[in-house]
Parts: sequence; structure tokens; C-alpha cells
Amino acid sequence: MEDTVALSLDEVRALAHRVLAQLGLSERQIGPVAETIVAGERDECGAHGIYRLLSCAHTIKAGKVVLDAEAVVHDMAPALVRVDGGGGYAQLAFDLGRPILSEKARNCGIAALGLNNCVHFAALWPEVEALAEEGFVALAFTPSHAWVAPAGGTRPLFGTNPIAFAWPRPGTSPFVFDFATSAVARGEIELHRRADKPIPLGWGLDPEGNPTTDATAALAGSMLTFGGHKGSALSAMVELIAGPLIGDMTSVESIAADDGANASPLGGELIIAIDPKSFLGAAAAEHLARAEQIFDGITGQGARLPSLRRYEARARSLANGVRVSKKLYDDILAQLG
Amino acid sequence: MEDTVALSLDEVRALAHRVLAQLGLSERQIGPVAETIVAGERDECGAHGIYRLLSCAHTIKAGKVVLDAEAVVHDMAPALVRVDGGGGYAQLAFDLGRPILSEKARNCGIAALGLNNCVHFAALWPEVEALAEEGFVALAFTPSHAWVAPAGGTRPLFGTNPIAFAWPRPGTSPFVFDFATSAVARGEIELHRRADKPIPLGWGLDPEGNPTTDATAALAGSMLTFGGHKGSALSAMVELIAGPLIGDMTSVESIAADDGANASPLGGELIIAIDPKSFLGAAAAEHLARAEQIFDGITGQGARLPSLRRYEARARSLANGVRVSKKLYDDILAQLG
Repeated sequence: MEDTVALSLDEVRALAHRVLAQLGLSERQIGPVAETIVAGERDECGAHGIYRLLSCAHTIKAGKVVLDAEAVVHDMAPALVRVDGGGGYAQLAFDLGRPILSEKARNCGIAALGLNNCVHFAALWPEVEALAEEGFVALAFTPSHAWVAPAGGTRPLFGTNPIAFAWPRPGTSPFVFDFATSAVARGEIELHRRADKPIPLGWGLDPEGNPTTDATAALAGSMLTFGGHKGSALSAMVELIAGPLIGDMTSVESIAADDGANASPLGGELIIAIDPKSFLGAAAAEHLARAEQIFDGITGQGARLPSLRRYEARARSLANGVRVSKKLYDDILAQLG
Repeated sequence: MEDTVALSLDEVRALAHRVLAQLGLSERQIGPVAETIVAGERDECGAHGIYRLLSCAHTIKAGKVVLDAEAVVHDMAPALVRVDGGGGYAQLAFDLGRPILSEKARNCGIAALGLNNCVHFAALWPEVEALAEEGFVALAFTPSHAWVAPAGGTRPLFGTNPIAFAWPRPGTSPFVFDFATSAVARGEIELHRRADKPIPLGWGLDPEGNPTTDATAALAGSMLTFGGHKGSALSAMVELIAGPLIGDMTSVESIAADDGANASPLGGELIIAIDPKSFLGAAAAEHLARAEQIFDGITGQGARLPSLRRYEARARSLANGVRVSKKLYDDILAQLG
């Protein structure tokens, strides 16, 4: 059993604040970035908890984050708002845009928020979950770095291009999913490489475009999308609607801007919020209750809701705090040295 | 080689009008329904061309279509409109709602159209493609009949729940995809049953919930989603946003309403339109041009755009008309007898 360190969530938060301050990030950005890291650790999403402080450190030291970024709102239309993140982390831009998105969705029934010129290191579920907690149905999309080949192709073009969705559930936590349109996360292939383990066929192609079970070859070549040509089509959609549609970079452009630094992707994100009360009026409660039959239909046959594991972890963490790897904890403390 | 009959597209249209009139469908509905069938035959989507006249005949004779349906518009919010199809075909409701959706999307930047109480027999691409031809980015979703098990489950819960997307391309036809979130279309499994051919593992489960290669067992049991838990999550999303969100039926409720008639599904559909000009202002042309690099990146490595096959077929059909199976043609003529 690996050595671990017990931390309360307040201690996780304090650690994140200390490390991010030491790295020179402005107070304005530290707050929302730290909350995202606390949420990831709390929900036992290993790759999106305090582990991300190391990738923040790497990205900041590579000069790829504007440390004192100021986000600027551009009100484009009654149901559209863009927030230019000024080269800072997306959390700052989202926090500024979220209340405007909410107001527009309540007024118009549906609205969209485009985040531009932001550094992305986090999962999308904290954002769509927050909107569902306000009563909205929410969707989010973002490109990343060009690592993934289109179906039928042999070379990287798409990012891992996640799609996140949240649905408000009266009296309980929202139904949420958030997944990469690549077959697996890039980190999963990296873990296989470190462990010197073969990867299953279907995860990647070697630099010559041939199917491979070699993690190093797949990382040097291209990843594949989930679900064949359907996943590939969805990945193209994410490139388009969270890239050119909002005037921001494609994954090819983002990895070119990275210029070998291996920093977190820079670019855009699209978030859509729909107000069920606008669609349904007084019947909203009745129809939201009817939606519960779908969830009952899933769990009633022994299948799992995609958000369940996180919510179970969250309940544990809120009661007992978290345990993190001693080695990871020491690596993070070393950032303070 | 199967015997075929050569038809001009006008002859296809005239055939559709004659059959639908003979079946008692109102003139108001015949127009848009026939155009959808012409579009399917023109684009050589075998299952969505004149073959669908047989399923229209079946559904109408089963009493599952309101022949003289009147669609009614409900303006819900600045960016939301619902159209109650009155139990008629979705094409009537879409034609009524489309200009309102377009106007709302132009005014607000993003807008949504919910179609309610409609019979659905067609693919969704004609609708999103039409919106993209107007310059919008468009998405469409609809549940169907509960035939598909959730990932990790063993019993039907979801419909085949397609997702369609279209992106406007200056000077050429839109980028469009439209696919079921089931592993394959139900008709594909039916074709295997008729041909007495085994189906691949991953398409379906037998009535006891075990993986099967037997088409009859899968049709009696459950179909599976594409892409494992990710496809299953997307299918759940379609159930929610094109069902309860717009006050309409789930796939479980739709198949219950069918009551064994094996008619086309009755229920809702959600269509979202986004106006790139609202997001981008004067820079819209520049960013739409930049999106072309994504398409070039796909085709430049020998991969195909999902809409290419249809557009190639369309060019052939517009020049030369179509050839349809003599047996199918005779079966359709028999409806006129």
C-alpha cells in the first residue's frame, strides 16, 4: 500500500492557494483555479485534483499563462456572451461569464457562453454541474491539442475534445457526464508507458499510421477517437463549435502555439445553458419528475449513472477529508521550496 | 443484378404524392413528407427514400398518424419555440417552426425549437442541413422506441436516439453528420435476420441480457449503444433533452403508446440553431474560412467527411435521376391498388 497523507478539504484548498501564489498567479485567478482543484480531489478524480498543481507549475514556468490576466466580457447578442480570458486560466473567465449566461438563459430560454483565449487544465463537469445546480440543462465543449486522428486517417488533427452534459434533478445532485471524444485520456496512455504495459488496440496509431499496442509509439503517433466514425464526427463538431464558431483556435493551432512546451492547451470553450422552466412553464416540475424514470430505468437494471462514483466519493471526502499519495504531496511541496 | 426502375426526381416526388394521398394524408402534410422522401432517395440513403412510403403506409393504416393534423406554434421565450404537431408527421411541424427558429437565432444568437407530438420516420439531416444552408450551425436530437439497453444494463430503455449536426461552409454544401447512438440502426439487424446472417458481438443482447450474435435474439432482447458508456451517456442525453425537457415522451413511453403496432415513433424532437455572425460579427467570414482547415485536415489524410457520400450521390441523382429496386417499386405501387 502506497504511503498516503490525510488532508481535510480546507487543507487541500490552502495547499492549492500556497502553491499557486508561489507560482506568481494573481489572487483573482487563484480563487477559482483552487476551487476546481479542490472539487477534483474531493470527488476522487485523481488526475484532476492536487496532481494538477504540478501541471499548473509546469505550464506557468513555461510562460504559457498570463499571471495577472484580466477577463473581459463581450455581450454579443441577447443570448450570447463571450469572455476573453486574457491568456489566463479558464476558471477566471467562466466565473465572470457564468452569471451573465444564467441571466441570458433565464431571459431567452437558451443561451451560450464562449470563453476565449483561456488556458484549460480542468475537467468540464464542475462548470456544467454548477449550471445544473441553478436549474439549467448545460452542455460544454473544448478543443485541446492535436493528438487524435480522425476515423480513417493516420495523423493527429483533433484534440481529446471533451463533451460534458448536466441535467438538474430536484432534491438530488445533477445527472452529469464529461468524457473525452478520444478513446481514452492521454494520461491513460502515459500511465501505460510509465508502467511499460501494452495498450489495447483501438487507442492509438504509430507515427506511420499503423494500429499499435505500444504506448510510446501511440504518443508519438496519434490517438484514436472513441466509437469509430461516430466519435470522430463528434470530435470534429467540438473542434468547430468551440473553435472557429467562437473565433478561437483549433487543436492544431493550439499545439502550434504550445511550440513544444507541453503546457496546458490554450483556446476556447463553448457552454450552452437551457432553462427547462422556459420550455415547460408551470409543467416544469412534472416533466423533471418524469425524467427521473429514465434514471430509475438505468439504475433499476444494475447499470450506473455516470456521475454516481464522483458523488459517492464526494460524500466520503466531505465527511472524512481525503488521502493523497505521500510522493505526490512531497512533489507538490517541493514547488514551495 | 437486381431489376431496377429508372425514375427522375420529379417522378419520385409524384409517386410519393400519389401514395400519401391514397393513404389519406392531408395535402398540408404530403408536401413536406414527400420532400423528405425525395431527399433521401436523391442522396441514395436507401432506408430513407421511397422505401419509407411502405413504413408510412404501415403507420397510417395502424391509425398512428393524425391525417389532417394541424400544427400549432407556442412561442415560449425570445429564443425558444415549440410546435405541437397534433399527432401528424414531424415534417409539418418543422416547416412551421423553422422560420421562427431562424428568426429567433438571428435575433438572439442561439435559439431552440421543440417539436411535440409528432410522428418521426425520417433522418434528421434534411433539417440540420436546411438550417446550415441558411448560415446556422444546427443540432437535432430525437428519441424513438425503447429498443436499446444502457451500458452495463440488460434491458431496453433508450431509443436509437440520433444526433445530427450541420456546419455551414461558404461556397459548398454544409458539413453534416447524423447517426444513431445505438451501435447500428435497427434496420441493419433486421437485414441480418432476413438474410439469416449472424450479427457481430456488440450490437445486441438476447432477452436474458447476454451478448448475442443472433439477430432474432437481439431484436427480441436489446440493442446496444455505440461506444460503450460514452455512447450510452449520449443516448441518455437525447432522451432527456428531446423528451422531458420539451414536455414530450421518452422512448419507453413512445413504445408503450405504440402498443405493439410497430409504427413509427411518436414524440418530440429538439433542434438548436446558432448564428456564427452573432458570435463573430464582422470576423465571421474569416473564422468560417479557418474552419475549412479542419475539413482539409480530414480529407488531406485520406479520411472522409461524413456527408461526402450523400453529396456525391446527390450530384449523380440531380443529373441522371435514380434507379430503384423493381420489387420495391412494385410493392409501393401496390399501395395504390
